[in-house]
Amino acid sequence: MIIDSLIEKIKETGNPSVIGLDPHIDILPTHLTSDTSKSITYAIFEFNRNIMNAVCGIVPAVKPQIAFYEQFGVKGIECYIKTVSYAKRKGFIVIGDIKRGDVPSTAEAYSAGHLGTVKVRNKEMQIFGEDFVTVNPYLGSDSVEPFLNDCKKFDKGIFVLVKTSNKGSADFQDLDVNGKKLYEVVGERVSDWGKDLIGEYGFSSVGAVVGATHPKDAAKLRKAMPQTFFLVPGYGAQGGKAADLAVYFDKNGLGALINSSRGILAAYKNYPKGEEFYAEAARQAALDMRKEIRSFVN
Amino acid sequence: MIIDSLIEKIKETGNPSVIGLDPHIDILPTHLTSDTSKSITYAIFEFNRNIMNAVCGIVPAVKPQIAFYEQFGVKGIECYIKTVSYAKRKGFIVIGDIKRGDVPSTAEAYSAGHLGTVKVRNKEMQIFGEDFVTVNPYLGSDSVEPFLNDCKKFDKGIFVLVKTSNKGSADFQDLDVNGKKLYEVVGERVSDWGKDLIGEYGFSSVGAVVGATHPKDAAKLRKAMPQTFFLVPGYGAQGGKAADLAVYFDKNGLGALINSSRGILAAYKNYPKGEEFYAEAARQAALDMRKEIRSFVN
Repeated sequence: MIIDSLIEKIKETGNPSVIGLDPHIDILPTHLTSDTSKSITYAIFEFNRNIMNAVCGIVPAVKPQIAFYEQFGVKGIECYIKTVSYAKRKGFIVIGDIKRGDVPSTAEAYSAGHLGTVKVRNKEMQIFGEDFVTVNPYLGSDSVEPFLNDCKKFDKGIFVLVKTSNKGSADFQDLDVNGKKLYEVVGERVSDWGKDLIGEYGFSSVGAVVGATHPKDAAKLRKAMPQTFFLVPGYGAQGGKAADLAVYFDKNGLGALINSSRGILAAYKNYPKGEEFYAEAARQAALDMRKEIRSFVN
Repeated sequence: MIIDSLIEKIKETGNPSVIGLDPHIDILPTHLTSDTSKSITYAIFEFNRNIMNAVCGIVPAVKPQIAFYEQFGVKGIECYIKTVSYAKRKGFIVIGDIKRGDVPSTAEAYSAGHLGTVKVRNKEMQIFGEDFVTVNPYLGSDSVEPFLNDCKKFDKGIFVLVKTSNKGSADFQDLDVNGKKLYEVVGERVSDWGKDLIGEYGFSSVGAVVGATHPKDAAKLRKAMPQTFFLVPGYGAQGGKAADLAVYFDKNGLGALINSSRGILAAYKNYPKGEEFYAEAARQAALDMRKEIRSFVN
């Protein structure tokens, strides 16, 4: 099961972290973006490829955020798909950060494109090919069901938004619903949705997004959802601290994957050798992050 | 303001409805999909173009659902962008049904790509170019703010999911939050978000998605959100009835846009002349729908 593959990769690398491939244009080294003989999406792919080559073997997974590709339209989606495909070739587990969510018949199309296959003239084709995608729960169970079906059929996984890392997450996710917070109620449902997809290590291929900026909420959720793996954004640039991370994990040091994007991708900005060594800087930052997480997590 | 343009188109056509361009493969006439000399996305565009030509002047807006394009990857996104662009050339208001929602820096990228412009080598480029897009509120105010900023800057609009048309919408949207339903609380915020974008007719460019399958909820929301325009999916195939639609409108017969997808696109399946006349069948179905809505709405 895909959650087992993720856990095995984490054990192999000794590193419960994921690199967010979020190529904000202001993050790319100027020598890449200023070469006008190449398209901007070519520059992004080159950047991603070199980052992935540099962290291969020390990081188990990558998480491209599709918005930073989609914003460039056709060329951007091409770059996203190339990035996913290259990442899989290099042995990374790939989490597509797409945060899709729609009514059932539409969710089927999203799920087919990203997790399953799409019928094109009697041929079933894989289009995006991520291992996991993130899903928005606002539309309820029947909107998540198509993803669950494809998780079973194609051995894939999802991470459902439960408590996000941004400040505005308080607006609705923290609302009181008969003595519980809304995100707790969502968490319970996510737990249920994952019941048929539990792997060898006791975790489900249906995970939850729980921001690094909310350690108190995470501690509650960790207890309430012992079989749910957490994808944890917001570490570093968004304010989440390593010392707060222990509560996201279980007593065996499993159960969470900490995401860092800018901290790794833009590490070259504080790297003595200069921006041309952005991949080396990223590798060093990934090693530092692993060390930091390990100092607080078993 | 874009909401005024929408309202004026509705008045011109005497038709508060929108056609959902949701090209499920099983909806396309077989003579289009069986021509293997053309790609499937070419067939979809040809279908969309002929439908739009047929309903031009009698329907004010179209709403392509991006999932049905995105599932085909690069070629699908190309087809989506061509569809948006053709629709605008024909004078339709275009609502991109994308249901995006993410943390602020990511929401900025989505908003730039769909509503605003994206900087590509010092040139500000319009990428998708829809007039409105749909937005998911689960991540809260700061996740919607980038869209609001672009609505102001580029004269665009959004429709935020409040109460969706699917059955599963009850799971979270109907939860009790201190005596109110969650969707009512979301509705109040949507109303606030739209305060700076009120047009000449008293409606905001920040609208709400309220499913045709929930007339009782809609009646409450119509009262609570007098300045919010409703985008109303779920009419027809999903079970929403024309007789229930009056409550979505205000006393002047304004304030809502009823969506139909399958009922228009697949009208040829019950059309005596056969599937080659799918565009003519769509036009007839659009005229019938207008008549039906008018019989219940002032």
